[in-house]
Amino acid sequence: MNTGEQLLPVLAAGGPGLASGLRLAEARLNEVAGAHGEVLAGHAGGTLAAGGKRLRPLLVFLCAGRTEPDERVVAAAAAVELLHMATLVHDDVLDRAPLRRGYPTVVATAGRDAAVATGDLLFSRAFAELAATGSAPAVQALSNASTALARGELMQRDDAWSADVTAERYRERCQLKTGSLFAASCRLGAELGERGGHTADALAAFGDRIGVAFQILDDVLDVSGPVEDTGKHRGTDLLDGTVTLPLIVARARDEELRALDLRSAATTPREAEALCDRIAATGALERSRTEALEIVATAKRDLAAIDLEPWQRDALDLVADGVVARYS
Amino acid sequence: MNTGEQLLPVLAAGGPGLASGLRLAEARLNEVAGAHGEVLAGHAGGTLAAGGKRLRPLLVFLCAGRTEPDERVVAAAAAVELLHMATLVHDDVLDRAPLRRGYPTVVATAGRDAAVATGDLLFSRAFAELAATGSAPAVQALSNASTALARGELMQRDDAWSADVTAERYRERCQLKTGSLFAASCRLGAELGERGGHTADALAAFGDRIGVAFQILDDVLDVSGPVEDTGKHRGTDLLDGTVTLPLIVARARDEELRALDLRSAATTPREAEALCDRIAATGALERSRTEALEIVATAKRDLAAIDLEPWQRDALDLVADGVVARYS
Repeated sequence: MNTGEQLLPVLAAGGPGLASGLRLAEARLNEVAGAHGEVLAGHAGGTLAAGGKRLRPLLVFLCAGRTEPDERVVAAAAAVELLHMATLVHDDVLDRAPLRRGYPTVVATAGRDAAVATGDLLFSRAFAELAATGSAPAVQALSNASTALARGELMQRDDAWSADVTAERYRERCQLKTGSLFAASCRLGAELGERGGHTADALAAFGDRIGVAFQILDDVLDVSGPVEDTGKHRGTDLLDGTVTLPLIVARARDEELRALDLRSAATTPREAEALCDRIAATGALERSRTEALEIVATAKRDLAAIDLEPWQRDALDLVADGVVARYS
Repeated sequence: MNTGEQLLPVLAAGGPGLASGLRLAEARLNEVAGAHGEVLAGHAGGTLAAGGKRLRPLLVFLCAGRTEPDERVVAAAAAVELLHMATLVHDDVLDRAPLRRGYPTVVATAGRDAAVATGDLLFSRAFAELAATGSAPAVQALSNASTALARGELMQRDDAWSADVTAERYRERCQLKTGSLFAASCRLGAELGERGGHTADALAAFGDRIGVAFQILDDVLDVSGPVEDTGKHRGTDLLDGTVTLPLIVARARDEELRALDLRSAATTPREAEALCDRIAATGALERSRTEALEIVATAKRDLAAIDLEPWQRDALDLVADGVVARYS
């Protein structure tokens, strides 16, 4: 488990119930990764080990609000992380990424073919985990999120290198690519914690917002670095043709940037870094970061109106702050 | 709808309820393909149009045994076909296939990236359709099948060009790759037609068997052709490194074939066709076809012991015969 130092206060707020829930979810993920033949065990094991902050399972537990671990909540926590892992494996296929968080990707070690199938398998297991809870609305929430993730991915590919991507379209993509699974994590937690209806909707809206803020910050970090913190070169989005908020804002402010043909402007890591510097010079990073902070502020404001246990609200507040406080 | 001439007797046996059910499922598939943005509509539309026999939806309807169309059964029929389409789109990515049944594949028209995401989207919609039925066991059945499909695909990639693939391992792969979704189609039909328990298990076993037989016959047709019927060159499996029953049997019978290094034996379509002729010369195609026929005979024998309406049994018998009677 690599929840990240920034999340230690969240764990403290969540108490022993949260910590043991996260441990159970981690054990379940290891079990699933090891259970479907040696080939999967190898591929999925690497993806699991590359870890990550397990933010989505964390949201499931916090929104479920149980102080004792519950089997169905653990299953939902494992399911959202499995779906997330599946999309990471497929994203790496698309991006031909050699490393993720310093670990070799499945596509790098086993090839594109195995990576597509591994992603499919992780996908399937996400739904199998959730089906085991016996909750059809839970499955529906996950499949809606999963549809949104794929739509976001298609939109991103479709918009690659396009000069016409508006800030509005960018936000829609963030909602699809990231907000949707954060929202589903909160909704699943609420539903399985037996807090359906209005509370589930409100928690899902909270998740959606902090997911979008998380994505905006991710896109800021791709331009700002530093490399030592993010673990990847600056400007990978520019090399991929992914048009993000910093670039959109910078182009609105800098005529020369606006005149650039995106496809030819950054074809090498060195050119991409130079373009990052130009984007930063326009103040677009501060503007983008401010937008993320505003979204988090709205999320926290609305959270205050939801009927929650004090420890739940405290912990969710900390998570909201955490998504925009990374490396800053 | 392209159910294929061979399935006309099945439609006759199934009566007007079956025909209208299949029409509703087709309409639902078109709706799903059109509903998630223009990009998906374009990509999925092509895959849908390439059609196929809609064998899996047919099994759902026949096992449900309703004489009036039922919304949940239609949803399950759409779900199994969506899952099948998702795997076809991903298979085409892996095989870099330009055409499927004469239509350009998504990977050929839109690129690998869009094809992976399109497959993911179809995957998600399969689960969304099924979740809408409110049946958690149905979702579980589909996710188990979906896991099996991905495991089969991983196994196939892992065994590529291997001289060590036994007939037993080959059969296991057929079960994972094809039997599992045929079985799930029957199980879903039975469950949603409110024939759970023993009947659902028995119908799933029937589906599993005819799925394996279907796959064996597919692999025979890849060696035997004729191209005019199959719509693809002979020996594509050999070019892919996919070791199938005809090759396994032929290698056991022909020492020179056994000595061949599979990776270098067929690197061009012309070499693959020559290798097909050598395989055929050993009698391996007849042996493989006989195995498929025997499996179908067992499936039909066991079907006779299941408590079904006479029209259901007649129609399922015809489907079983159909999977091994293609182009012969």
